[in-house]
Amino acid sequence: MTREKRFMRAAIKEALKAREIDDVPIGAVIVMGDKIVARGYNRTENSQVATRHAEMIAIEKACKKLKSRRLDGAEIYITLEPCAMCAGAIANARIKRAVFGAYEKKSGCAESKYPVLSDNGLNHSVDYLGGVEEQTCAALIKDYFRKKRAENV
Amino acid sequence: MTREKRFMRAAIKEALKAREIDDVPIGAVIVMGDKIVARGYNRTENSQVATRHAEMIAIEKACKKLKSRRLDGAEIYITLEPCAMCAGAIANARIKRAVFGAYEKKSGCAESKYPVLSDNGLNHSVDYLGGVEEQTCAALIKDYFRKKRAENV
Repeated sequence: MTREKRFMRAAIKEALKAREIDDVPIGAVIVMGDKIVARGYNRTENSQVATRHAEMIAIEKACKKLKSRRLDGAEIYITLEPCAMCAGAIANARIKRAVFGAYEKKSGCAESKYPVLSDNGLNHSVDYLGGVEEQTCAALIKDYFRKKRAENV
Repeated sequence: MTREKRFMRAAIKEALKAREIDDVPIGAVIVMGDKIVARGYNRTENSQVATRHAEMIAIEKACKKLKSRRLDGAEIYITLEPCAMCAGAIANARIKRAVFGAYEKKSGCAESKYPVLSDNGLNHSVDYLGGVEEQTCAALIKDYFRKKRAENV
């Protein structure tokens, strides 16, 4: 299994934790070298705090653990292309590389809406790779919204 | 005094708190109707957590206070044009209007770099107004970095 698939599966495990609390199933892990240093899953519905996306939680945990606002050399694995808030946070934290699963065509800020990761106006550019375990990551979210719609009929 | 100036002065007071802890002096307040419901100041250096911008702290406080991830009808007053992370958070929180002081030409995401507030791919657009108490807000940041450079000589 490739490195990318291995860590994406860890991010998918986080997404499943979000599903368990009935939140949109999105997960993230932060990797330094060959080790996961922080994990996070989406908790926006559960917490009713707008900023509690998987990436934000993982970045904050990693900063606290490493006692640094700069996560130089770190990678982040996310099941979905990050939104503007999360792409901005990834760049602000000087993360080196972002790997994501499904594309978010309307609002993703790796490449779909704005190229925030690679061109953010900071003296820092984040490398990225999209589409890793894409079908699994996309199906999780699609199934969540299909179930929500069925409940609301 | 205009409504905008009045609330911007409250945001400037927050920026001064950041300066007191030797952090980049940026402040924010969130207003509902005619009342400040949450305040925040930049704590990235002090906390060593990359996401601790003034806006993020204020938004999280407001969500917790109002027990809602959607701050419908709210305004945010910020001393500096928001970065991608903060502009994304403002849009994610469905804030109605953002008023800022100084422009951030390189990375601001009201209009300078990307129009995240008004065109974010969500079904929500944030109105904005820049340049309120611009000179005061810009001078705070300029003086901070001038002092930092002098210390490092």
